[in-house]
Amino acid sequence: MNQLDTDTVVQIGVIVKDAEQAARHYAEVFGIPKPEVVPIADDSFANTVYKNKSSKAAGRAAFFKLGPVEIELIQPLGAPSTWEEFLRKRGEGVHHIAFRTQKLTEAQQFFKSKGMETVQSGGWDGGRYAYIDGTQQLGTILELLHFD
Amino acid sequence: MNQLDTDTVVQIGVIVKDAEQAARHYAEVFGIPKPEVVPIADDSFANTVYKNKSSKAAGRAAFFKLGPVEIELIQPLGAPSTWEEFLRKRGEGVHHIAFRTQKLTEAQQFFKSKGMETVQSGGWDGGRYAYIDGTQQLGTILELLHFD
Repeated sequence: MNQLDTDTVVQIGVIVKDAEQAARHYAEVFGIPKPEVVPIADDSFANTVYKNKSSKAAGRAAFFKLGPVEIELIQPLGAPSTWEEFLRKRGEGVHHIAFRTQKLTEAQQFFKSKGMETVQSGGWDGGRYAYIDGTQQLGTILELLHFD
Repeated sequence: MNQLDTDTVVQIGVIVKDAEQAARHYAEVFGIPKPEVVPIADDSFANTVYKNKSSKAAGRAAFFKLGPVEIELIQPLGAPSTWEEFLRKRGEGVHHIAFRTQKLTEAQQFFKSKGMETVQSGGWDGGRYAYIDGTQQLGTILELLHFD
């Protein structure tokens, strides 16, 4: 066992310019219905913190369940966020690999002790998340998901 | 069902500058033994074709089994390849999302009909693969894996 309390990938997050258009392509390729594109981080549960500052960041997202793993398409909107930063600096691409954890705060501290800071955190009606900046050590951002 | 003959993510490929060093970080984070870093695409099974030309591309890779999904760390070596191109143009990051298929050629044709070309293909002692350039439509490269 590890201090992360998880070793199971549950989601891959892909930053796209247009979630509606990308979702149509995914639906066509995988032969499944196009899910509704929904707003994210735009409600009272969001409490988004980006680089240690409160942010009105928001986005539009589409979720595809592909076997055991979900693909989340994220179109950044509004204020600064890790999503907007990624699109601006790198263009479209895979932004994060997500893992569930029941110990979100401990996991964030564990990563911090390894030199990997929380770049963004927040919540939704059902849980909380933290993006860990592992770009130097792991080649990618990780997301930790805590379901209430 | 879809023409792709699969809807299950089996692997996430991450391009890194140094597979040995990145593998140490992954092993530490996930509390699992560091797998051996192994050569890829360097033997008689490789037959690598990159952008429609035979290529002596090679790499070093480490494979981590994280629940149902494998993370493959790839350090590009040698001649031009999709791995080397990704590292040069984008730096370290998630290069591909992989799916198994039993109909590799048909799947490649299906993607081609949707405007997504095979950017690289090849084999190993046990199967064949094709990287599909879905960067415009899907925001990422996909890999199709055919196990003999």
